[in-house]
Amino acid sequence: MRVEFRLSGSGGQGLLLAGIVLAEAAILDDKNAVQTQSYGPEARGGSSKAEVVISDEDIDYPKATDPDYLLALTTDAYRTYGSIMGKGLVIVDSSVRLSDEIKARTVSVPILATAAEKIGKKVVANIVALGVLGGLSKAASRESLEEAVQSRVPKGTEGLNLSALRAGFDLADLAMAQPDYRRATAASPEAALEDARTARRNARRGENDGRYR
Amino acid sequence: MRVEFRLSGSGGQGLLLAGIVLAEAAILDDKNAVQTQSYGPEARGGSSKAEVVISDEDIDYPKATDPDYLLALTTDAYRTYGSIMGKGLVIVDSSVRLSDEIKARTVSVPILATAAEKIGKKVVANIVALGVLGGLSKAASRESLEEAVQSRVPKGTEGLNLSALRAGFDLADLAMAQPDYRRATAASPEAALEDARTARRNARRGENDGRYR
Repeated sequence: MRVEFRLSGSGGQGLLLAGIVLAEAAILDDKNAVQTQSYGPEARGGSSKAEVVISDEDIDYPKATDPDYLLALTTDAYRTYGSIMGKGLVIVDSSVRLSDEIKARTVSVPILATAAEKIGKKVVANIVALGVLGGLSKAASRESLEEAVQSRVPKGTEGLNLSALRAGFDLADLAMAQPDYRRATAASPEAALEDARTARRNARRGENDGRYR
Repeated sequence: MRVEFRLSGSGGQGLLLAGIVLAEAAILDDKNAVQTQSYGPEARGGSSKAEVVISDEDIDYPKATDPDYLLALTTDAYRTYGSIMGKGLVIVDSSVRLSDEIKARTVSVPILATAAEKIGKKVVANIVALGVLGGLSKAASRESLEEAVQSRVPKGTEGLNLSALRAGFDLADLAMAQPDYRRATAASPEAALEDARTARRNARRGENDGRYR
C-alpha cells in the first residue's frame, strides 16, 4: 500500500527534518520511502513543503499526487494545499483558521501550543507533528519513529525530541476522537463510538499531569 | 535549463545534507530546485543516494532521469549508478577503483583525502563534494553555496565547512584540468588547453601551503 504525506508550514518549522525522519522510520520497518523537498514558486511566499511517500512496493513516482495526509501548520499553508486535497485527511494546527471552502476531512490539533507549553521548546513542533502523523497513519511504527528521531536530531536533544514525539502520539489519539475523523474512518456508528472512547482514554492517560517527559 | 545531480556513496557520508544545501543555494539564485532522497532496495546494501534537480523553469518530474552529474564516493556506488549513466559526467573519489565497463565521462578527485588531511575532518567530505559539484556545474553560485552551507551546518562548524567548500571548488578546478573533462566540454583544442592552464593556475593558487583555511 502506498501512503502519501505532504507536510506544509512556514520556513524554519523543520518540516524537511520531519519528512526525513518519517521516511527513515519507514525504512527501519522494511518499507520503501522517498522524501522530497521542493523549492521554488510553489514553496515561496513564506511557505515550506516537504513530501514523503511510503510503500510496501517499489515507488515509481516519488511525489504526492493525492496525499493521504496533509499537515498544515499555518493558515497560509492550509489554504494553499488544503484547497487541492482530495480523499485525504487534513491535519491543521489549532492556530489555523478553518475555511468552509476547503471540503476535505479535517482535524485540528494543538501542535504548536503543545511544543511551546508542554515541551517548553517551540522548535520541536516538527517532531510533535511527526508523532501526530505517525499515530494517525501508522505508516511507520512508533519504535522506528523513536529510533529515527534519535539518529537525526542534534546530539543532546534526543530526550526532548522523544518527549515531543510522545506528545504527538497523544495528540493523534485526540484527533481520532474528533467527529470528522470518526465519520471518515469508522466502519459503523458503534465502531466510531468505541474509537472515540479509546481515544479519549488514551488522551487522558497521556495528560495525567499535563506534562510530557 | 534543467540540471540533474545524483549524489551517491555510503550511508553516513552526509550526501542528503549536501543535496539539501545544493538545492537551497539554487533557490538563493532564484532558480527552482527539488531535492529527493530515496530509501529502499535501490538504496540498500550500504549505498546511499540523494538527488537534486535545478532548473530555471518549473520542475515537473522531480527525479534525475539522465543525470548531468553523478557523484560516487565509493566503488559500490560508482558501479551501481555509473553503469546507468548516459550523457553526464561521473565524479568519483580517488579511492574508487575505475572500471572499463563504465563508459561515461569520468573524473577522479581526492574528496575523502582532502577532507581528512587538508581540512582535518573526515565528516566534511560531503561539503568538499558539494564544492566540487558547484565548481563543475555552476548550477548554483559560489556565494549562494556559502550562504546555504552556513545556514544548514551545525552551529560552531561554519568555518570548518566553508573551508571544506573552498577546498571542493579547488578540486573542481583540478578536475577540469583532467583530459576526460576537457575532451568532453571544451569547444576546441585551443580552448581545452586554455581551460587546463587556467585550472592548473587556480589549483596551484589554492594549494600555496597545502592547507585550506
